[in-house]
Amino acid sequence: MRPVTPSARVNRRTVVSTLALLPVATATLLSASVRAEATTEIDPLPSWNEGAARKAILDFVRATTDASSPDFVAPEQRIATFDNDGTLWVEQPIYTQFAFALDRVRAMAPMHPEWKETQPFKAAIEGDTKTLADAGERGLLKLIMATHAGMTTDEFQNIVLDWLANARHPKFQRPYTELVYQPMLELLAYLRATGFKIFIVSGGGVEFMRPWTDKVYGVPPERVIGSSVKTQFEIRDGRPELLRLPEVNFIDDGAGKPVGINEHIGRRPIAAFGNSDGDLQMLEWTTKVDGRRLGLIVHHTDGEREYAYDRRSAMGRLDVALDAAAANGWVVASMKSDWKRVFSFQ
Amino acid sequence: MRPVTPSARVNRRTVVSTLALLPVATATLLSASVRAEATTEIDPLPSWNEGAARKAILDFVRATTDASSPDFVAPEQRIATFDNDGTLWVEQPIYTQFAFALDRVRAMAPMHPEWKETQPFKAAIEGDTKTLADAGERGLLKLIMATHAGMTTDEFQNIVLDWLANARHPKFQRPYTELVYQPMLELLAYLRATGFKIFIVSGGGVEFMRPWTDKVYGVPPERVIGSSVKTQFEIRDGRPELLRLPEVNFIDDGAGKPVGINEHIGRRPIAAFGNSDGDLQMLEWTTKVDGRRLGLIVHHTDGEREYAYDRRSAMGRLDVALDAAAANGWVVASMKSDWKRVFSFQ
Repeated sequence: MRPVTPSARVNRRTVVSTLALLPVATATLLSASVRAEATTEIDPLPSWNEGAARKAILDFVRATTDASSPDFVAPEQRIATFDNDGTLWVEQPIYTQFAFALDRVRAMAPMHPEWKETQPFKAAIEGDTKTLADAGERGLLKLIMATHAGMTTDEFQNIVLDWLANARHPKFQRPYTELVYQPMLELLAYLRATGFKIFIVSGGGVEFMRPWTDKVYGVPPERVIGSSVKTQFEIRDGRPELLRLPEVNFIDDGAGKPVGINEHIGRRPIAAFGNSDGDLQMLEWTTKVDGRRLGLIVHHTDGEREYAYDRRSAMGRLDVALDAAAANGWVVASMKSDWKRVFSFQ
Repeated sequence: MRPVTPSARVNRRTVVSTLALLPVATATLLSASVRAEATTEIDPLPSWNEGAARKAILDFVRATTDASSPDFVAPEQRIATFDNDGTLWVEQPIYTQFAFALDRVRAMAPMHPEWKETQPFKAAIEGDTKTLADAGERGLLKLIMATHAGMTTDEFQNIVLDWLANARHPKFQRPYTELVYQPMLELLAYLRATGFKIFIVSGGGVEFMRPWTDKVYGVPPERVIGSSVKTQFEIRDGRPELLRLPEVNFIDDGAGKPVGINEHIGRRPIAAFGNSDGDLQMLEWTTKVDGRRLGLIVHHTDGEREYAYDRRSAMGRLDVALDAAAANGWVVASMKSDWKRVFSFQ
């Protein structure tokens, strides 16, 4: 599941120009023979069909990384932010983290006999999706707090990894970590090879993502920004621990995304990638400034290979942001027409 | 003020092993001639006297970065965290950020005639340090909120940079950004060259530090963790901005440091560096676990070249953490005896 090695995918000229950004000691090690190879072109985005979306990405990267370009951006300013659910991996029929919470409620139910008579726990145990939907965000928050708090950060990490190792997606019958979009993995590798620092900026829980993002996306924990609960430092049996409290610390969604980006990165991105109205402000924050910028929205148009939804469907919402895309010149990438493959196994 | 280039200071064997951590494409570029040079030893810590502190640092780095060592730590786990005030730069006679706040009150006073009659603003304007000291943390917070909020993040960054360009330290009569400890700059460069990711974890305001840490320490904004005010996303005249609100978001001090580290990095450090009781929990969080770890405290023992203070002096507090150092095997580096130079200009 690790993204392809950049050198295997991007054109060699790109590799050489990336290496040129490394410390002098490294740059001087480039032998003439390697420079000679630099003319071989290898497609960095093989799972993207020819079209406007693919062209916009390639043009943007060339314009911002070619030192002779008027739109050149210094390497330290090459920040790219990616939403996770629906942008890098599947978010249907429900958010993966919600599936995790429901499974955790069922696993923890024997220790909580009162849940059999208390909503939304009763509905979670019984798989009563109608009642769960009616319980709304407030109900979801109750389930999250009951299942995501009350343990140390180290314990929670193990719970997440155990669950991911065993859980299977209902439609694809595969581990969730295989349901990541192959074209987006190629895009991550391409940006990385051209000197971009990649951050995930997700409404999902930061500690639900960090245990696996490095392995799956090549994005290390310190480059993952997400929602969080409060934690508390404690010495337990002589060992320092952080206890997860059932209290919201930060919601990294909507207008919270620019706030989270600023808190964690301290620089404005020059490229941002999302798929829903929750990404609107991140895309605005990134693109509505001077200088060459890229905003891209993944449009779920492929009911066969993945799911088809937008606007105000029950499954997700891409409404205001879809209109804003047209107004702001953001790229709308259609899964059906822009992607040769959706998943690596297809 | 940029730290010395790693290649100029560290021994070449270290450089070669660091390069080995870079992507395969780079590693294969290492020519045989460079490998042959790897035996030349260059002292990575020339401003550190021979002694226990220096030896502990060198031993720790060798033990954790030599692949044949039983204490070897994989590169992605090599996280080192540094306090800022008093650990990397001067914090006397008052925190630099406090000096900034006082200057800002004076600069803003004409727009706030009511401050002439309101404490602690009156004391700030008049330089009445006794009244300021009596106003305590609550008074300081009032000054911070009045001077650090009410503008956009971009505006605040410019205010900080303007101030730093003109302000001079009362004892040394130099810009504050020159009052960084030369031995610590060497340590940062050494750790960077041996594959460590370096983070600043300071009680100071994160947006007070980020405008200059890359230039002065080689630590980019996304690796700076600090205290913060809340911010709010707004579209102003068609442009997205983050407005700084007069409300505390996070205090990155004491037991807040492990919390901040976990929120931003998502991994436990293996080395931590501080100088006061505010760093106690960060050092505990880092070192009181299995595996080879390094905790180090900078001890301000040099009243001549810098300042001498510890325990419960009016100038700063290193009390509980100094006792904990002895109990936990943390290194206590004495400015007077362990450092050949304190500042680059000495």
